[in-house]
Amino acid sequence: MTRARVVRRSGGRKVSRRIPGSPSAASATDAAFERFLTASAARADRVLTRRLADRPDTCRLGEAMRYAVFGGGKRLRPALVYLGCQAFGGDLRAADGAAAAVELVHTYSLVHDDLPCMDDDDLRRGRPTLHVKYDEATAVLAGDALHTEAFATLAALARPEHVGECVRILAEAAGLQGMVGGQVRDLDAEGAKPKAALVEQIHLGKTAALIAGSLELGAVAAGASAAGRRLLRRYGLVVGLAFQVADDVLDVVGDVATLGKTPGKDAASGKMTYPAAVGLEQARAKARALSSQAARLAGRLGGPAEGLLRALPRFVTERTK
Amino acid sequence: MTRARVVRRSGGRKVSRRIPGSPSAASATDAAFERFLTASAARADRVLTRRLADRPDTCRLGEAMRYAVFGGGKRLRPALVYLGCQAFGGDLRAADGAAAAVELVHTYSLVHDDLPCMDDDDLRRGRPTLHVKYDEATAVLAGDALHTEAFATLAALARPEHVGECVRILAEAAGLQGMVGGQVRDLDAEGAKPKAALVEQIHLGKTAALIAGSLELGAVAAGASAAGRRLLRRYGLVVGLAFQVADDVLDVVGDVATLGKTPGKDAASGKMTYPAAVGLEQARAKARALSSQAARLAGRLGGPAEGLLRALPRFVTERTK
Repeated sequence: MTRARVVRRSGGRKVSRRIPGSPSAASATDAAFERFLTASAARADRVLTRRLADRPDTCRLGEAMRYAVFGGGKRLRPALVYLGCQAFGGDLRAADGAAAAVELVHTYSLVHDDLPCMDDDDLRRGRPTLHVKYDEATAVLAGDALHTEAFATLAALARPEHVGECVRILAEAAGLQGMVGGQVRDLDAEGAKPKAALVEQIHLGKTAALIAGSLELGAVAAGASAAGRRLLRRYGLVVGLAFQVADDVLDVVGDVATLGKTPGKDAASGKMTYPAAVGLEQARAKARALSSQAARLAGRLGGPAEGLLRALPRFVTERTK
Repeated sequence: MTRARVVRRSGGRKVSRRIPGSPSAASATDAAFERFLTASAARADRVLTRRLADRPDTCRLGEAMRYAVFGGGKRLRPALVYLGCQAFGGDLRAADGAAAAVELVHTYSLVHDDLPCMDDDDLRRGRPTLHVKYDEATAVLAGDALHTEAFATLAALARPEHVGECVRILAEAAGLQGMVGGQVRDLDAEGAKPKAALVEQIHLGKTAALIAGSLELGAVAAGASAAGRRLLRRYGLVVGLAFQVADDVLDVVGDVATLGKTPGKDAASGKMTYPAAVGLEQARAKARALSSQAARLAGRLGGPAEGLLRALPRFVTERTK
């Protein structure tokens, strides 16, 4: 895709310039984003390994926790922490604790969400869910231990002067005002007619809160200004909503082999999804609109990670799993 | 019980002296301890009310969380935070966040512990357990939200310079090295022959870790020295073990009306308890021995709260509920 690049001499130095807005500029940033995601996942995996896998503790619960954490997740949320840090020119080492912590919160929520009394899922990322592989009690406790470990990791690895603020952001993203709040709204809405406004409210809590929180944690690690954090947070909520709308669409059109989980479940169980509320095509249009909105906010954020911030909404809305 | 007091004139000032070790000196400190416990519970309730009850959020999950938190608990763990703070002459206001946080962790663990896939309990403090009153999914999520709220409360109310250390202590007390670790050892041991060493290991994790952690959090709030914290922690582990042994005994000899939960359940389900491992009388003797050991450590700790520190082990081993 070198077509989109103009290589010219400038004072004897080679300059590689991308033509903004051209399709191949997008492809180039998408490729850069994929590399960033791979590098971030590897980095987060090293932190998680240090916290979880290198322990002498070999009890069954430790095994179960590792089964859940090292189960082929994309590590999107840790990558967002690093992205938030990079957006404000921060040192990624300062973001390691938060990167691991958000993945631990995400993992605990999946383990509990899959339980028979919740979504009752047997398959997650192509493998048996934790309560199927072990048992329900182990799944409850492993989720609880991962939840605690998230805050322990933050306290252990975040810079001392950031711990309080980081705990506050993570707790708000994960708790009643965020992820769990969205889950419970989802439960409460079961059987009701899906409406776009309600679906949006649920998605903002269930998914977007932790995505926005991840970006903000990275910004804190980089010592970003309050205004910068606010703008990044807004961007994160839009990206998060786009992510979940795309997820709803995938639940309708995806297949089990690619998704690694059972598709069509949400629709079958009358869940609050965008396609259920407004139809498949409108849902796709909504995802595209959110993606464009996020790209505009990325432009306003600018900075050293602008290209990655622009690529992220495309990545979350154009993925196939 | 004035018999144990010698009132004498000393330079025109009335001095009330307690004869150390006499039964009525114990009664006097026990009465003081009960007053301390009542005052601490009221104080912790005010903090918990501010965090949970005064919210505008009226969703079902918020209700469920309040049902669990304001359900007639003794607030022993918050009292231990205040006791740890008082032992080192600290300002109780600095301990409010930790006091509420340990109660939130304790409450979340009870909610999850009562679940059908765990202990399957219908009754807690004389009321239906959360999953009976609401449903299982709500109980899982309410527990999760209380767990998050514990760390949020710590971050919001602890002194900024203490947050990191407090989160570390709370997470260690609650996680795989503490409470959850004990719970999983308990699960793993099901069906095995109860042995005293294994029971002790389970109890240290399930109960003593959070009790010792509560005291240590109070000490941190008071700015105690590392040596002071270590000694208080040791005392806390002994008191915690005594508490759980006494609990095992109550499960055998208590009645449902006083306990507010179903007695005999542990014995019936082949749980790891002291009476099951060594018999009822030996278990009682163990509780008494631990109580004496804790009293000796209280003597070494000394300080402004020595009387309360001496009364606590009596309180936990001589209670009837």
